[in-house]
Amino acid sequence: MSSHHIVRDDQEPALIIANGEACSTELLGQLLEWSPLVIVLDSAMERVVELGIKVDVLLGDFDRDFNPQEFIKSQHPIEIVYTPDQEKTDLEKALDYLVERKIPSANVIWATGRRADHTITNLTNIARYRELIKIVILDDYSKVFLLPRSFRKWYPAKSIISLIPVGTVTGISSANLLYELQNDTLIMGFRTGSSNSVKQDGIVSITHENGDLLLMECSD
Amino acid sequence: MSSHHIVRDDQEPALIIANGEACSTELLGQLLEWSPLVIVLDSAMERVVELGIKVDVLLGDFDRDFNPQEFIKSQHPIEIVYTPDQEKTDLEKALDYLVERKIPSANVIWATGRRADHTITNLTNIARYRELIKIVILDDYSKVFLLPRSFRKWYPAKSIISLIPVGTVTGISSANLLYELQNDTLIMGFRTGSSNSVKQDGIVSITHENGDLLLMECSD
Repeated sequence: MSSHHIVRDDQEPALIIANGEACSTELLGQLLEWSPLVIVLDSAMERVVELGIKVDVLLGDFDRDFNPQEFIKSQHPIEIVYTPDQEKTDLEKALDYLVERKIPSANVIWATGRRADHTITNLTNIARYRELIKIVILDDYSKVFLLPRSFRKWYPAKSIISLIPVGTVTGISSANLLYELQNDTLIMGFRTGSSNSVKQDGIVSITHENGDLLLMECSD
Repeated sequence: MSSHHIVRDDQEPALIIANGEACSTELLGQLLEWSPLVIVLDSAMERVVELGIKVDVLLGDFDRDFNPQEFIKSQHPIEIVYTPDQEKTDLEKALDYLVERKIPSANVIWATGRRADHTITNLTNIARYRELIKIVILDDYSKVFLLPRSFRKWYPAKSIISLIPVGTVTGISSANLLYELQNDTLIMGFRTGSSNSVKQDGIVSITHENGDLLLMECSD
């Protein structure tokens, strides 16, 4: 059976395409191949359609001379979700939509770069979805996710691992990092664990007691 | 007297060029024109020299097959500052260098984009320099700085203003914003003031009692 016949189902992460800097076509292609559901945020739609991508859901408040109706024919079938709530970002609205549909995980691209307020808000707001949906934010240099209280994963030696606290995180301990943490506290703006790395090929273990800790796998 | 004869002095902000995404040549040119001192971080030097920029200080740990000595002739006079401290980011080291020289303010470019860990660390670490040096981080979409306890500035109506708490910020009140704050609390990851805007042409006033609050002037 060729890969073309594999049925994509809702166990694979949905793909959310936000409105920041575009990623490489290589990363985009890898993620598209396995995504059962592609959600595009608001006016990013124009850039996405130019790339010849089939979109399943177009979501936003459409408040900037942008008419979502013009994609109904060319992208049929497409669901258009109008979300005027000004209290939430477009990314939060898309995540809420997935939670509502009981989809357990999402990859998010184009969520970084361009406006710094969007970048920092998108990266840190995943903290509030801890119990609701697994989220990974990806760009050409970074893979970002919220750590569970106890985390274990195999990494090759020298992989860059940055631990970024969303606010204050206490009781952090690690094994197999170059700069080990032992019941440490990290505080955003004052003490972060940026640019740590993996000591040797093998399992990295990171635990923390309180707060929200982002892990960023990064490369230049 | 032509502008070429204006003596640049240390009252103008120094310019730090970090190692993230390059900004537009227009923004770069505007900032270079008035900077009495140009500091380049580590291997960004290669990209900066390609643009024909005269550099005053090259600073970093030079740990990646990068030889700073090769710029001594072509950039003469240049100061090379070797900063091997692994506890600090290159941007912090450059800011420490300026504090040491009693330079009161710095503009920082190329500090966002590319690696997400560098972006978020650079943006939020300016909190720790509150009493030491005035810092503005700029890119093509954003101008970011730490707010003093009481802030007032004239803005045109509809300017986008995002208030991003580095951790938790309490007692925030505003005047002349679309979504006013009244003794409010913002918490990174959970409640931010992203994408607010100016109500009408005039003074915007923002006060806060505790914590570190970034103001981001952004545009798409």
